[in-house]
Amino acid sequence: MNPRARHPAARASSGRRPGPRIGRVFLVGAGPGDPRLLTLRGAEVLRRADVVVHDRLISPAVLDLAPARAERIDVGKAPGRPHPDQAAICALLVERARRGQAVVRLKGGDPFVFGRGGEELLACARAGVPVEVVPGVTSAVAAPAAAGIPVTHRGLARSFAVVTATTADGGGPDWAALARAADTLVVLMGAGRLAQVCRALVAAGRAAEEPAAAVEAATTPAERTVVGTLATLPDLARAARLRPPATLVVGAVVALAEETAALRTAQAPSSGISSGSAPIVGPCQGSSSGR
Amino acid sequence: MNPRARHPAARASSGRRPGPRIGRVFLVGAGPGDPRLLTLRGAEVLRRADVVVHDRLISPAVLDLAPARAERIDVGKAPGRPHPDQAAICALLVERARRGQAVVRLKGGDPFVFGRGGEELLACARAGVPVEVVPGVTSAVAAPAAAGIPVTHRGLARSFAVVTATTADGGGPDWAALARAADTLVVLMGAGRLAQVCRALVAAGRAAEEPAAAVEAATTPAERTVVGTLATLPDLARAARLRPPATLVVGAVVALAEETAALRTAQAPSSGISSGSAPIVGPCQGSSSGR
Repeated sequence: MNPRARHPAARASSGRRPGPRIGRVFLVGAGPGDPRLLTLRGAEVLRRADVVVHDRLISPAVLDLAPARAERIDVGKAPGRPHPDQAAICALLVERARRGQAVVRLKGGDPFVFGRGGEELLACARAGVPVEVVPGVTSAVAAPAAAGIPVTHRGLARSFAVVTATTADGGGPDWAALARAADTLVVLMGAGRLAQVCRALVAAGRAAEEPAAAVEAATTPAERTVVGTLATLPDLARAARLRPPATLVVGAVVALAEETAALRTAQAPSSGISSGSAPIVGPCQGSSSGR
Repeated sequence: MNPRARHPAARASSGRRPGPRIGRVFLVGAGPGDPRLLTLRGAEVLRRADVVVHDRLISPAVLDLAPARAERIDVGKAPGRPHPDQAAICALLVERARRGQAVVRLKGGDPFVFGRGGEELLACARAGVPVEVVPGVTSAVAAPAAAGIPVTHRGLARSFAVVTATTADGGGPDWAALARAADTLVVLMGAGRLAQVCRALVAAGRAAEEPAAAVEAATTPAERTVVGTLATLPDLARAARLRPPATLVVGAVVALAEETAALRTAQAPSSGISSGSAPIVGPCQGSSSGR
């Protein structure tokens, strides 16, 4: 069936009397920041949206893909202002779909990587609302990539693990287990807790000299990367005034950032996935800093 | 600078005499299978490609985005036929860029998640060839998602780890460390070693009753999912004749596949990210099997 046939406008023009009808929810990953990293399918469903329910950091260029008539609802968390809780967002999606609307729930990165998309999927499932998941490019992979760091690399890393610095219940993850888990560790939303996280990883057995990088606002014009070691990164990041959103990468693969840095500088600012200049601040030896 | 200005055709029509010039390599993630899960940027660079150097399982619909005149070179591994080794692929990319061509290196999933993109990035960097990384939707997240399984979920999984069943040196990963590492484990390219992997994880301390799923050909029309436990999944998958490429997912989040299965069945086959019927074979209790 052509999905267009479900569109209210298409139905209206078909001449059939609208009976009780139900809309549809699309859980769409918008990617790490650069609007060009949205998927073709994500763009397609956005262009047919009646309502876009979106996170705070979604690029205007992505939101602009929706029709001008589409309602845009920002449900993102921002410091110092009220925002709907998860139950309210789930209820909103179900309620709008029941009105017959095409509801696009647009999330940064991928909906199922710390995006709470699972809860929204279940809410729709329990309400009998049809839902389609459109995966996205996750920052867990794309933020390191933007800094020239592959999460796996022959001879350096055969596995990677992904975690957030703070979990929903306010506690931290089991750093001791994670430290031993995988060759490359990716910590999302780690900007505010960089010092604690690096300290915890060293306490759990990772070498203080292990290369570590923090990537701010990956794949956006504001992208900046700070490279150091587990021992030096927190100070380097503080000196560089690194801000959220930032992704922390730990492991031998981080050393590759230096080797690709010259290349990235040579081709900046017009190329690379970032349109920013993406300076490498501080080499792995940790001898320099600054912005 | 407009990237189009670098295109050979654009240069030819500019009237300037072509001096020594260099092309550009794009390392592009094609996504998990469904051609609609390519990124907008991936589609954009494909449309300007002079050469497409691609893996074996790339969808024809994606390859068709390249101009008809573009050369297509299949460097993918296939059983029983010779294929270029990694060094030869790296040399090919550099050589074609030095001819002034726009070279798109198209990989399944994401180039930096077991895609050996890091090696190709370094080869270009060392040769002074400009390169752009265009991340893709990784199967590590999208294959579970296709089966209705979020890799993270409030109350069930606060971290995930990704690994391949066989590593480049022929050995397996450190299952004991991985088993303790993260709440959700994703094992790529695991179809041929399902029994060994499940056994190793149980030996390393994961519960035999822990939910586990294998997703074959995720997000393609051939997609099929087998759901069981670490104890039952190998037999269920054998009975279902599960074939590569397949992704193994282990963890409490797998139980969500059952709850969303009814929804997925109700809306199949026209919706969901897969265009296939994606049957759930065998519930988590492991009481049924078959195709």
